[in-house]
Amino acid sequence: METLVEAEGGIDMTNQKKPIQAVVFDAYGTLFDVHSVMEACEEFYPGDEKMISQIWRQKQLEYSWLLSLMERYEPFESITRRGLIFALRSRNLPFDEPVLKRLMGEYRRLGVFPEAFAALERMKDRKLAILSNGNPEMLEPLLEYTGIEKKIPLLLSVEEKKIFKPHPTVYEMAPDFLGIPKEEILFVSANSWDVAGARSYGLRVAWINRARNQQEELDLLPEIEIQDLEELADYVANN
Amino acid sequence: METLVEAEGGIDMTNQKKPIQAVVFDAYGTLFDVHSVMEACEEFYPGDEKMISQIWRQKQLEYSWLLSLMERYEPFESITRRGLIFALRSRNLPFDEPVLKRLMGEYRRLGVFPEAFAALERMKDRKLAILSNGNPEMLEPLLEYTGIEKKIPLLLSVEEKKIFKPHPTVYEMAPDFLGIPKEEILFVSANSWDVAGARSYGLRVAWINRARNQQEELDLLPEIEIQDLEELADYVANN
Repeated sequence: METLVEAEGGIDMTNQKKPIQAVVFDAYGTLFDVHSVMEACEEFYPGDEKMISQIWRQKQLEYSWLLSLMERYEPFESITRRGLIFALRSRNLPFDEPVLKRLMGEYRRLGVFPEAFAALERMKDRKLAILSNGNPEMLEPLLEYTGIEKKIPLLLSVEEKKIFKPHPTVYEMAPDFLGIPKEEILFVSANSWDVAGARSYGLRVAWINRARNQQEELDLLPEIEIQDLEELADYVANN
Repeated sequence: METLVEAEGGIDMTNQKKPIQAVVFDAYGTLFDVHSVMEACEEFYPGDEKMISQIWRQKQLEYSWLLSLMERYEPFESITRRGLIFALRSRNLPFDEPVLKRLMGEYRRLGVFPEAFAALERMKDRKLAILSNGNPEMLEPLLEYTGIEKKIPLLLSVEEKKIFKPHPTVYEMAPDFLGIPKEEILFVSANSWDVAGARSYGLRVAWINRARNQQEELDLLPEIEIQDLEELADYVANN
Protein backbone atom coordinates (compact mmCIF):
# COMPACT_ATOMS: atom_id res chain seq x y z
CA MET A 1 0.00 0.00 0.00
CA GLU A 2 2.81 2.40 0.82
CA THR A 3 4.29 1.85 -2.63
CA LEU A 4 0.96 2.62 -4.27
CA VAL A 5 0.60 5.83 -2.30
CA GLU A 6 4.08 6.95 -3.23
CA ALA A 7 3.40 6.11 -6.87
CA GLU A 8 0.53 8.56 -6.71
CA GLY A 9 2.85 11.40 -5.81
CA GLY A 10 3.08 10.98 -2.05
CA ILE A 11 -0.55 11.94 -1.50
CA ASP A 12 -2.09 9.76 1.16
CA MET A 13 -5.49 8.93 -0.33
CA THR A 14 -6.75 7.79 3.06
CA ASN A 15 -6.44 11.30 4.45
CA GLN A 16 -9.65 13.14 3.63
CA LYS A 17 -8.74 16.17 5.76
CA LYS A 18 -8.75 19.70 4.39
CA PRO A 19 -5.64 21.85 4.85
CA ILE A 20 -5.09 23.52 8.23
CA GLN A 21 -5.86 27.21 7.72
CA ALA A 22 -5.45 28.32 11.33
CA VAL A 23 -3.60 27.11 14.41
CA VAL A 24 -5.17 28.08 17.74
CA PHE A 25 -3.18 27.68 20.94
CA ASP A 26 -4.14 27.11 24.51
CA ALA A 27 -1.95 29.38 26.67
CA TYR A 28 -1.27 28.00 30.17
CA GLY A 29 0.75 24.81 29.99
CA THR A 30 0.92 24.88 26.20
CA LEU A 31 2.86 28.05 25.31
CA PHE A 32 3.64 29.05 28.89
CA ASP A 33 5.02 26.83 31.62
CA VAL A 34 2.67 27.17 34.62
CA HIS A 35 5.24 25.44 36.79
CA SER A 36 7.73 28.26 36.30
CA VAL A 37 6.03 29.72 39.42
CA MET A 38 8.10 27.23 41.39
CA GLU A 39 11.11 29.52 41.67
CA ALA A 40 9.15 32.25 43.44
CA CYS A 41 7.41 29.66 45.63
CA GLU A 42 10.81 28.30 46.63
CA GLU A 43 11.94 31.76 47.68
CA PHE A 44 9.12 32.02 50.24
CA TYR A 45 8.61 28.34 51.06
CA PRO A 46 11.80 26.40 50.36
CA GLY A 47 11.13 22.68 50.00
CA ASP A 48 7.40 23.14 49.41
CA GLU A 49 7.62 24.69 45.94
CA LYS A 50 6.82 21.56 43.97
CA MET A 51 3.75 20.60 45.98
CA ILE A 52 2.49 24.20 46.04
CA SER A 53 2.82 24.43 42.28
CA GLN A 54 1.00 21.12 41.68
CA ILE A 55 -1.88 21.75 44.09
CA TRP A 56 -2.19 25.34 42.88
CA ARG A 57 -2.64 24.20 39.29
CA GLN A 58 -5.02 21.35 40.21
CA LYS A 59 -7.29 23.63 42.24
CA GLN A 60 -7.15 26.40 39.65
CA LEU A 61 -8.60 23.95 37.12
CA GLU A 62 -11.12 22.34 39.48
CA TYR A 63 -12.46 25.74 40.52
CA SER A 64 -12.80 26.82 36.89
CA TRP A 65 -14.97 23.74 36.26
CA LEU A 66 -16.96 23.97 39.49
CA LEU A 67 -17.72 27.69 39.27
CA SER A 68 -18.68 27.29 35.60
CA LEU A 69 -21.15 24.56 36.54
CA MET A 70 -22.52 26.71 39.38
CA GLU A 71 -23.00 29.50 36.82
CA ARG A 72 -20.72 31.69 38.93
CA TYR A 73 -18.10 32.78 36.44
CA GLU A 74 -15.33 34.97 37.73
CA PRO A 75 -12.07 36.01 36.03
CA PHE A 76 -9.37 33.34 35.84
CA GLU A 77 -7.06 35.56 37.85
CA SER A 78 -9.47 35.39 40.78
CA ILE A 79 -9.77 31.62 40.38
CA THR A 80 -6.00 31.31 40.23
CA ARG A 81 -5.79 33.21 43.51
CA ARG A 82 -8.28 30.83 45.12
CA GLY A 83 -6.13 27.91 43.98
CA LEU A 84 -3.01 29.49 45.44
CA ILE A 85 -4.67 30.10 48.82
CA PHE A 86 -5.90 26.49 48.91
CA ALA A 87 -2.40 25.24 48.09
CA LEU A 88 -0.73 27.31 50.82
CA ARG A 89 -3.33 26.30 53.42
CA SER A 90 -3.02 22.64 52.43
CA ARG A 91 0.66 22.83 53.41
CA ASN A 92 -0.09 24.87 56.55
CA LEU A 93 2.04 27.71 55.23
CA PRO A 94 1.62 31.26 56.52
CA PHE A 95 0.91 34.02 54.00
CA ASP A 96 -0.21 37.61 53.82
CA GLU A 97 -1.41 39.94 51.09
CA PRO A 98 2.08 40.98 49.84
CA VAL A 99 3.10 37.30 49.47
CA LEU A 100 -0.09 36.48 47.55
CA LYS A 101 0.47 39.52 45.36
CA ARG A 102 4.04 38.51 44.63
CA LEU A 103 3.15 34.90 43.78
CA MET A 104 0.14 35.92 41.70
CA GLY A 105 2.42 38.31 39.84
CA GLU A 106 4.34 35.27 38.59
CA TYR A 107 1.38 34.43 36.35
CA ARG A 108 2.23 37.57 34.39
CA ARG A 109 5.85 36.48 34.01
CA LEU A 110 5.57 32.75 33.20
CA GLY A 111 8.30 31.16 31.14
CA VAL A 112 7.70 30.44 27.45
CA PHE A 113 8.64 26.93 26.33
CA PRO A 114 12.08 27.32 24.73
CA GLU A 115 11.22 26.11 21.21
CA ALA A 116 8.11 28.32 20.94
CA PHE A 117 9.48 31.30 18.99
CA ALA A 118 11.20 29.28 16.27
CA ALA A 119 8.16 27.03 15.92
CA LEU A 120 5.72 29.95 15.67
CA GLU A 121 7.96 31.54 13.03
CA ARG A 122 7.67 28.36 10.95
CA MET A 123 3.85 28.46 11.18
CA LYS A 124 3.43 32.09 10.16
CA ASP A 125 1.85 31.12 6.83
CA ARG A 126 -1.27 30.11 8.82
CA LYS A 127 -3.59 32.25 10.90
CA LEU A 128 -2.47 32.04 14.52
CA ALA A 129 -4.51 32.76 17.65
CA ILE A 130 -4.63 32.05 21.38
CA LEU A 131 -7.82 30.68 22.97
CA SER A 132 -7.45 30.85 26.73
CA ASN A 133 -9.24 30.63 30.07
CA GLY A 134 -7.20 33.68 31.08
CA ASN A 135 -8.92 37.05 31.33
CA PRO A 136 -7.28 39.76 29.20
CA GLU A 137 -6.07 41.75 32.25
CA MET A 138 -4.09 38.68 33.29
CA LEU A 139 -2.99 37.42 29.89
CA GLU A 140 -2.08 40.59 28.00
CA PRO A 141 0.79 41.56 30.35
CA LEU A 142 2.19 38.02 29.93
CA LEU A 143 1.96 38.19 26.14
CA GLU A 144 3.71 41.55 26.20
CA TYR A 145 6.36 40.53 28.75
CA THR A 146 7.30 37.40 26.83
CA GLY A 147 7.01 38.92 23.36
CA ILE A 148 4.52 36.25 22.26
CA GLU A 149 2.15 39.04 21.20
CA LYS A 150 4.48 39.75 18.28
CA LYS A 151 4.05 36.18 17.02
CA ILE A 152 0.34 35.57 17.67
CA PRO A 153 -1.86 38.50 16.68
CA LEU A 154 -5.25 37.33 18.01
CA LEU A 155 -6.20 36.69 21.65
CA LEU A 156 -9.54 35.01 22.33
CA SER A 157 -10.47 34.92 26.02
CA VAL A 158 -13.33 33.03 27.68
CA GLU A 159 -14.01 36.31 29.50
CA GLU A 160 -16.25 37.14 26.54
CA LYS A 161 -18.43 34.08 27.21
CA LYS A 162 -18.33 34.09 31.03
CA ILE A 163 -17.81 30.34 31.19
CA PHE A 164 -14.63 28.26 31.15
CA LYS A 165 -13.34 25.43 29.02
CA PRO A 166 -14.41 22.77 28.19
CA HIS A 167 -17.83 24.33 27.47
CA PRO A 168 -18.44 24.20 23.69
CA THR A 169 -19.28 27.91 23.47
CA VAL A 170 -15.63 28.65 24.29
CA TYR A 171 -14.19 26.57 21.45
CA GLU A 172 -16.82 28.04 19.12
CA MET A 173 -15.02 31.37 19.45
CA ALA A 174 -12.26 30.05 17.17
CA PRO A 175 -14.34 29.59 13.99
CA ASP A 176 -16.50 32.60 14.88
CA PHE A 177 -13.64 35.08 15.21
CA LEU A 178 -11.39 33.62 12.54
CA GLY A 179 -14.16 33.13 9.98
CA ILE A 180 -12.77 29.68 9.16
CA PRO A 181 -14.71 26.39 9.36
CA LYS A 182 -13.87 24.35 12.44
CA GLU A 183 -12.64 21.41 10.32
CA GLU A 184 -9.81 23.65 9.07
CA ILE A 185 -8.68 24.86 12.50
CA LEU A 186 -6.08 22.95 14.48
CA PHE A 187 -6.40 23.54 18.22
CA VAL A 188 -3.25 22.87 20.23
CA SER A 189 -3.22 22.05 23.92
CA ALA A 190 -0.98 20.35 26.44
CA ASN A 191 -3.97 19.49 28.62
CA SER A 192 -5.65 16.19 27.85
CA TRP A 193 -9.05 17.36 29.19
CA ASP A 194 -8.81 20.46 26.94
CA VAL A 195 -8.02 18.21 23.98
CA ALA A 196 -11.21 16.28 24.78
CA GLY A 197 -13.25 19.47 25.03
CA ALA A 198 -12.05 20.83 21.70
CA ARG A 199 -12.66 17.46 20.00
CA SER A 200 -16.11 17.27 21.55
CA TYR A 201 -16.91 20.63 19.96
CA GLY A 202 -15.45 19.55 16.62
CA LEU A 203 -12.11 21.31 16.20
CA ARG A 204 -9.11 19.40 14.90
CA VAL A 205 -6.72 18.87 17.79
CA ALA A 206 -3.02 18.31 18.46
CA TRP A 207 -1.98 17.20 21.95
CA ILE A 208 1.43 18.39 23.12
CA ASN A 209 2.43 15.80 25.67
CA ARG A 210 5.89 16.85 26.84
CA ALA A 211 5.95 14.75 30.00
CA ARG A 212 4.33 11.65 28.44
CA ASN A 213 1.33 12.11 30.69
CA GLN A 214 -1.55 9.71 30.82
CA GLN A 215 -4.47 10.49 28.53
CA GLU A 216 -7.87 11.16 30.10
CA GLU A 217 -10.39 8.32 29.64
CA LEU A 218 -12.90 10.43 27.75
CA ASP A 219 -12.83 8.77 24.30
CA LEU A 220 -12.19 12.10 22.59
CA LEU A 221 -8.80 11.75 20.99
CA PRO A 222 -6.46 14.20 19.25
CA GLU A 223 -5.53 13.60 15.62
CA ILE A 224 -1.88 13.76 16.65
CA GLU A 225 0.14 13.52 19.86
CA ILE A 226 3.47 15.31 19.80
CA GLN A 227 6.20 16.20 22.23
CA ASP A 228 6.71 19.90 21.67
CA LEU A 229 5.94 22.91 19.49
CA GLU A 230 8.72 22.05 17.06
CA GLU A 231 7.01 18.75 16.25
CA LEU A 232 3.82 20.73 15.90
CA ALA A 233 5.42 22.96 13.25
CA ASP A 234 6.53 19.81 11.37
CA TYR A 235 2.99 18.48 11.44
CA VAL A 236 1.41 21.77 10.35
CA ALA A 237 3.88 22.10 7.46
CA ASN A 238 2.53 18.83 6.02
CA ASN A 239 -1.17 19.44 6.67
CA MET B 1 -28.54 38.05 76.39
CA GLU B 2 -28.85 34.33 77.07
CA THR B 3 -30.98 35.03 80.13
CA LEU B 4 -33.26 37.27 78.10
CA VAL B 5 -33.68 34.62 75.45
CA GLU B 6 -34.50 31.96 78.02
CA ALA B 7 -36.97 34.29 79.67
CA GLU B 8 -38.79 34.44 76.36
CA GLY B 9 -39.38 30.71 76.35
CA GLY B 10 -36.11 29.40 74.97
CA ILE B 11 -36.54 31.04 71.56
CA ASP B 12 -33.25 32.34 70.25
CA MET B 13 -34.14 35.74 68.84
CA THR B 14 -30.85 35.95 66.97
CA ASN B 15 -31.72 32.91 64.88
CA GLN B 16 -33.96 34.03 62.04
CA LYS B 17 -34.00 30.60 60.41
CA LYS B 18 -37.21 28.67 59.84
CA PRO B 19 -37.44 25.07 61.07
CA ILE B 20 -35.84 22.35 58.97
CA GLN B 21 -38.71 20.50 57.29
CA ALA B 22 -36.62 18.15 55.17
CA VAL B 23 -33.13 16.67 55.27
CA VAL B 24 -31.66 15.76 51.89
CA PHE B 25 -28.56 13.59 51.70
CA ASP B 26 -25.80 13.27 49.21
CA ALA B 27 -25.09 9.53 48.77
CA TYR B 28 -21.47 8.76 47.82
CA GLY B 29 -19.09 9.76 50.59
CA THR B 30 -21.92 10.99 52.83
CA LEU B 31 -24.09 7.95 53.58
CA PHE B 32 -21.87 5.44 51.77
CA ASP B 33 -18.12 5.09 52.10
CA VAL B 34 -16.70 5.19 48.55
CA HIS B 35 -13.37 3.96 49.87
CA SER B 36 -14.88 0.66 50.94
CA VAL B 37 -13.93 -0.44 47.40
CA MET B 38 -10.38 -0.77 48.75
CA GLU B 39 -10.87 -4.31 49.98
CA ALA B 40 -11.76 -5.60 46.52
CA CYS B 41 -8.93 -3.57 44.97
CA GLU B 42 -6.52 -5.15 47.42
CA GLU B 43 -7.64 -8.61 46.38
CA PHE B 44 -6.59 -7.98 42.77
CA TYR B 45 -3.80 -5.45 43.31
CA PRO B 46 -2.32 -5.85 46.79
CA GLY B 47 -0.42 -2.73 47.89
CA ASP B 48 -2.07 -0.51 45.29
CA GLU B 49 -5.55 -0.42 46.80
CA LYS B 50 -5.25 2.96 48.49
CA MET B 51 -3.91 4.79 45.44
CA ILE B 52 -6.42 3.11 43.13
CA SER B 53 -9.28 4.15 45.39
CA GLN B 54 -8.08 7.77 45.62
CA ILE B 55 -7.40 8.24 41.91
CA TRP B 56 -10.62 6.40 41.02
CA ARG B 57 -12.67 8.82 43.12
CA GLN B 58 -10.78 11.92 41.92
CA LYS B 59 -11.27 11.04 38.25
CA GLN B 60 -14.89 10.02 38.77
CA LEU B 61 -15.58 13.54 40.03
CA GLU B 62 -13.44 15.33 37.44
CA TYR B 63 -15.14 13.46 34.60
CA SER B 64 -18.58 14.30 36.00
CA TRP B 65 -17.65 18.00 35.90
CA LEU B 66 -15.89 17.88 32.52
CA LEU B 67 -18.57 15.89 30.69
CA SER B 68 -21.26 18.14 32.19
CA LEU B 69 -19.46 21.20 30.85
CA MET B 70 -19.02 19.53 27.45
CA GLU B 71 -22.79 18.88 27.48
CA ARG B 72 -22.07 15.15 27.17
CA TYR B 73 -23.95 13.72 30.10
CA GLU B 74 -23.67 9.99 30.60
CA PRO B 75 -24.79 7.87 33.58
CA PHE B 76 -22.60 8.09 36.68
CA GLU B 77 -21.94 4.36 36.44
CA SER B 78 -20.26 4.91 33.07
CA ILE B 79 -18.26 7.82 34.48
CA THR B 80 -17.25 5.71 37.46
CA ARG B 81 -15.98 3.05 35.07
CA ARG B 82 -13.89 5.66 33.22
CA GLY B 83 -12.38 6.74 36.53
CA LEU B 84 -11.52 3.15 37.41
CA ILE B 85 -9.83 2.51 34.08
CA PHE B 86 -7.79 5.72 34.45
CA ALA B 87 -6.75 4.70 37.97
CA LEU B 88 -5.62 1.21 36.90
CA ARG B 89 -3.71 2.56 33.90
CA SER B 90 -2.06 5.25 36.06
CA ARG B 91 -0.55 2.43 38.16
CA ASN B 92 0.30 0.34 35.08
CA LEU B 93 -1.94 -2.43 36.35
CA PRO B 94 -3.31 -5.08 33.98
CA PHE B 95 -7.07 -5.60 33.84
CA ASP B 96 -9.74 -7.29 31.78
CA GLU B 97 -13.51 -7.11 31.56
CA PRO B 98 -14.20 -9.54 34.44
CA VAL B 99 -11.93 -7.52 36.77
CA LEU B 100 -13.64 -4.25 35.80
CA LYS B 101 -17.03 -5.88 36.32
CA ARG B 102 -16.04 -7.16 39.74
CA LEU B 103 -14.63 -3.81 40.89
CA MET B 104 -17.54 -1.83 39.46
CA GLY B 105 -19.87 -4.22 41.30
CA GLU B 106 -18.41 -2.88 44.54
CA TYR B 107 -20.27 0.39 43.94
CA ARG B 108 -23.48 -1.56 44.48
CA ARG B 109 -22.18 -2.94 47.78
CA LEU B 110 -20.52 0.08 49.40
CA GLY B 111 -20.38 0.23 53.18
CA VAL B 112 -22.82 2.47 55.07
CA PHE B 113 -21.20 4.69 57.71
CA PRO B 114 -21.80 2.86 61.00
CA GLU B 115 -23.85 5.53 62.79
CA ALA B 116 -26.21 6.07 59.81
CA PHE B 117 -29.17 3.90 60.79
CA ALA B 118 -29.51 5.19 64.34
CA ALA B 119 -29.09 8.79 63.14
CA LEU B 120 -31.72 8.40 60.39
CA GLU B 121 -34.12 6.88 62.91
CA ARG B 122 -33.73 10.02 65.06
CA MET B 123 -34.56 12.26 62.07
CA LYS B 124 -37.69 10.40 60.96
CA ASP B 125 -39.94 13.30 62.04
CA ARG B 126 -38.60 15.23 59.01
CA LYS B 127 -38.96 14.43 55.33
CA LEU B 128 -35.87 12.55 54.20
CA ALA B 129 -34.49 12.18 50.66
CA ILE B 130 -31.32 11.35 48.76
CA LEU B 131 -30.07 13.71 46.03
CA SER B 132 -27.29 11.95 44.14
CA ASN B 133 -25.14 11.99 41.03
CA GLY B 134 -25.79 8.25 40.81
CA ASN B 135 -28.14 6.93 38.16
CA PRO B 136 -31.02 4.83 39.57
CA GLU B 137 -29.71 1.58 37.99
CA MET B 138 -26.53 2.05 40.03
CA LEU B 139 -27.98 3.49 43.21
CA GLU B 140 -31.16 1.45 43.75
CA PRO B 141 -29.32 -1.88 44.21
CA LEU B 142 -27.07 -0.19 46.78
CA LEU B 143 -30.03 1.26 48.68
CA GLU B 144 -31.68 -2.17 48.69
CA TYR B 145 -28.49 -4.08 49.59
CA THR B 146 -27.71 -1.81 52.53
CA GLY B 147 -31.31 -1.38 53.69
CA ILE B 148 -31.07 2.43 53.47
CA GLU B 149 -34.18 2.38 51.26
CA LYS B 150 -36.21 1.51 54.35
CA LYS B 151 -35.02 4.69 56.07
CA ILE B 152 -35.06 7.20 53.20
CA PRO B 153 -38.16 6.94 51.04
CA LEU B 154 -37.27 9.38 48.22
CA LEU B 155 -34.42 9.07 45.72
CA LEU B 156 -33.67 12.07 43.50
CA SER B 157 -31.11 11.34 40.78
CA VAL B 158 -29.40 13.80 38.44
CA GLU B 159 -30.29 11.31 35.69
CA GLU B 160 -33.55 13.24 35.39
CA LYS B 161 -31.66 16.46 34.54
CA LYS B 162 -28.82 14.99 32.47
CA ILE B 163 -26.22 17.15 34.16
CA PHE B 164 -24.18 16.59 37.32
CA LYS B 165 -23.65 18.51 40.52
CA PRO B 166 -22.85 21.31 41.20
CA HIS B 167 -25.22 22.65 38.49
CA PRO B 168 -28.10 24.53 40.19
CA THR B 169 -30.78 22.60 38.31
CA VAL B 170 -29.74 19.51 40.26
CA TYR B 171 -30.19 21.08 43.70
CA GLU B 172 -33.46 22.59 42.52
CA MET B 173 -34.87 19.05 42.42
CA ALA B 174 -35.06 19.07 46.21
CA PRO B 175 -37.64 21.86 46.64
CA ASP B 176 -39.39 20.84 43.43
CA PHE B 177 -40.00 17.22 44.43
CA LEU B 178 -40.52 17.80 48.15
CA GLY B 179 -42.78 20.81 47.70
CA ILE B 180 -40.89 22.60 50.48
CA PRO B 181 -39.15 26.01 50.17
CA LYS B 182 -35.37 25.74 49.81
CA GLU B 183 -34.81 27.75 53.00
CA GLU B 184 -36.45 24.92 54.96
CA ILE B 185 -34.40 22.11 53.43
CA LEU B 186 -31.09 21.05 54.95
CA PHE B 187 -28.78 19.46 52.39
CA VAL B 188 -26.08 17.20 53.85
CA SER B 189 -22.83 16.37 52.11
CA ALA B 190 -19.35 15.19 52.98
CA ASN B 191 -17.93 16.85 49.87
CA SER B 192 -16.84 20.46 50.29
CA TRP B 193 -17.43 21.27 46.60
CA ASP B 194 -20.97 19.84 46.88
CA VAL B 195 -21.57 21.99 49.96
CA ALA B 196 -20.53 25.01 47.88
CA GLY B 197 -22.85 24.02 45.02
CA ALA B 198 -25.87 23.58 47.29
CA ARG B 199 -25.16 26.89 49.04
CA SER B 200 -24.75 28.60 45.69
CA TYR B 201 -28.24 27.40 44.74
CA GLY B 202 -29.66 28.46 48.10
CA LEU B 203 -30.27 25.32 50.14
CA ARG B 204 -29.30 25.23 53.81
CA VAL B 205 -26.22 23.02 54.13
CA ALA B 206 -24.48 20.84 56.70
CA TRP B 207 -20.95 19.65 55.93
CA ILE B 208 -20.00 16.26 57.34
CA ASN B 209 -16.25 16.45 57.64
CA ARG B 210 -15.20 13.13 59.15
CA ALA B 211 -11.54 13.36 58.21
CA ARG B 212 -11.14 17.06 59.05
CA ASN B 213 -10.48 17.79 55.41
CA GLN B 214 -9.59 21.21 54.08
CA GLN B 215 -12.49 23.35 52.92
CA GLU B 216 -12.58 24.45 49.28
CA GLU B 217 -11.74 28.15 48.72
CA LEU B 218 -15.09 28.96 47.14
CA ASP B 219 -16.59 31.34 49.75
CA LEU B 220 -19.78 29.30 49.94
CA LEU B 221 -19.92 28.01 53.48
CA PRO B 222 -22.17 25.51 55.27
CA GLU B 223 -24.26 26.69 58.21
CA ILE B 224 -22.71 23.90 60.25
CA GLU B 225 -19.68 21.61 60.05
CA ILE B 226 -20.05 18.31 61.88
CA GLN B 227 -18.13 15.10 62.21
CA ASP B 228 -20.73 12.45 61.52
CA LEU B 229 -24.42 11.67 61.03
CA GLU B 230 -25.01 11.42 64.78
CA GLU B 231 -23.95 15.05 65.21
CA LEU B 232 -26.24 15.84 62.30
CA ALA B 233 -29.19 14.28 64.13
CA ASP B 234 -28.36 16.44 67.18
CA TYR B 235 -28.35 19.54 65.02
CA VAL B 236 -31.59 18.69 63.25
CA ALA B 237 -33.32 17.98 66.57
CA ASN B 238 -32.68 21.60 67.60
CA ASN B 239 -33.49 23.27 64.27
